Amino acid sequence: MLALWPTFMYAAEPLPAWNDGPAKSAIVSFVEAVTKEGSDDFVPAAERIAVFDNDGTLWSEQPAYFQILFAFDEFKRLAPQHPEWKNDPTLKALLEGDKKTFAASGENGLLKVVGVTHTGISTEQFQANARAWLASAKHPKTQKPYTEMVFQPMLELLAYLRANGFKTYIVSGGEVAFMRAFAEAVYRVPPEQVIGTTFVSQFHDNEGQPAILRTPKLAHNNDGPGKPESIDAIIGRRPVLAFGNSDGDLQMLQWTAAGKGKRFMGLVHHTDAAREFAYDHPSPIGQLDKALTQATANKWTVVDMSKEWRRVYPFDKE
Amino acid sequence: MLALWPTFMYAAEPLPAWNDGPAKSAIVSFVEAVTKEGSDDFVPAAERIAVFDNDGTLWSEQPAYFQILFAFDEFKRLAPQHPEWKNDPTLKALLEGDKKTFAASGENGLLKVVGVTHTGISTEQFQANARAWLASAKHPKTQKPYTEMVFQPMLELLAYLRANGFKTYIVSGGEVAFMRAFAEAVYRVPPEQVIGTTFVSQFHDNEGQPAILRTPKLAHNNDGPGKPESIDAIIGRRPVLAFGNSDGDLQMLQWTAAGKGKRFMGLVHHTDAAREFAYDHPSPIGQLDKALTQATANKWTVVDMSKEWRRVYPFDKE
Repeated sequence: MLALWPTFMYAAEPLPAWNDGPAKSAIVSFVEAVTKEGSDDFVPAAERIAVFDNDGTLWSEQPAYFQILFAFDEFKRLAPQHPEWKNDPTLKALLEGDKKTFAASGENGLLKVVGVTHTGISTEQFQANARAWLASAKHPKTQKPYTEMVFQPMLELLAYLRANGFKTYIVSGGEVAFMRAFAEAVYRVPPEQVIGTTFVSQFHDNEGQPAILRTPKLAHNNDGPGKPESIDAIIGRRPVLAFGNSDGDLQMLQWTAAGKGKRFMGLVHHTDAAREFAYDHPSPIGQLDKALTQATANKWTVVDMSKEWRRVYPFDKE
Repeated sequence: MLALWPTFMYAAEPLPAWNDGPAKSAIVSFVEAVTKEGSDDFVPAAERIAVFDNDGTLWSEQPAYFQILFAFDEFKRLAPQHPEWKNDPTLKALLEGDKKTFAASGENGLLKVVGVTHTGISTEQFQANARAWLASAKHPKTQKPYTEMVFQPMLELLAYLRANGFKTYIVSGGEVAFMRAFAEAVYRVPPEQVIGTTFVSQFHDNEGQPAILRTPKLAHNNDGPGKPESIDAIIGRRPVLAFGNSDGDLQMLQWTAAGKGKRFMGLVHHTDAAREFAYDHPSPIGQLDKALTQATANKWTVVDMSKEWRRVYPFDKE
């Protein structure tokens, strides 16, 4: 029995939700090369750092980043407790359904809504809020919980990498405590392997009941160049594999690619209007333009979702 | 043969450099309690986060933080390449051996020396500098390399915790890239488990040769309240064990202690002038005053180095 076990394990085909196409083949070749002891491409387990963007790479990001949808729902839920929000013209417009005025405030208005719903409370309280929303909210198109709108092929890729000794990290523009509210349960990525945008937090002694309070001041914007910067600051090691889907991932891919030895750079290309969404550029969410040009020029792996993925979501039929 | 192996492993007494005193007993009891499945105190492996201060907790910190000694040596080494340093009165005084003027500049002068030696270069270049220094510099009292002035009992404690499923982190006021230059080789703590003070870094595209440049702007001062703040931001989970040696570790210990369930809070008390150093308060380096009072009041473990440690450094005779 024991002698049969390794054979059986090996026989289980990895990445079943991927079609036998160029992306799957590139992934498997890469992993086999860097894990083969004695080969020129071998990478010791301690250095097998894999980084993944989240929005649009591990789960969907349309019609808007799910965290933004959370912020709007939270804004509605919390408004009765915050009469002072009416003193701000932008927030007042949103409260009164004046979409035109609110839309005119642009990114500034969005940041205000994120600010008032995400800060001024402890990390623990914020994560309880995020979990309550994730447990009840439904996506406007699929009517599924957001945590089910994760990509089955990417879940399999994360598991396949971990089975091959990789440490899988999320490196996303999303706020870090929001992602940690579901990353461990959904992606099997523990909180300490989630890197994101951060607000300045402050420790308060509270006479023996210490708390860490989230302030509205941005500490780190984890997008674009902010991604390799946080990788260097927090991981302290250059990844050997990076996966993204938009121009916000370009610098992370460049930083990974510029390391010595074999590296894998991947992009999810949203080409599947029927099963997910189809967009690249121009797109207000997840714009993929410069990174696509560089991927083609440098022979990075571009995953054509409509062709390479046998299933998109876990709830899709086999 | 195989049947004997586990017995043999188990029989190896943990923590041989610790005397059979209250500290060793408290550590072993804690670890046995939180790792015993089914017990009320059981902590799942994923939540076994242990955090350690570095200076004065894992290695010595007298007559000054070793990183400060590195900064002064680097200042001397690099000065010929930086004629512009003479334009700064404080740096000029140091260059010309005018100790009185330099000393009068206080902490500001120290920060200037750290700034000019630690920033303006890439992380990789900085770590190469740190490694070169660590490979050649000798401690003024012992004449040993600094990386040998680590505490044998703490090396054993780190290994003992890891063998029991803990993830061991360094959470120190030292600059993070400096600590990463030796933490993996000396403590077996990988770069991604080293948290420290950080400078703002900037990603530069460099026309296809991307680099991350260290700027002199402080990003995070990882001392005092900065420790639980970075634990929350980077680890995202409250530790179950924390070890420090000074008032700069107080908030980290408080934050750990305030968690639910069994926790371990420890302080190294430097009581050993013969084998290491003896100091607590007042002390310009590693002041231990408020944290000692709170440790006594809250029954945290205070390690009396002279009594509890059979050996201090790995090079001490058995």
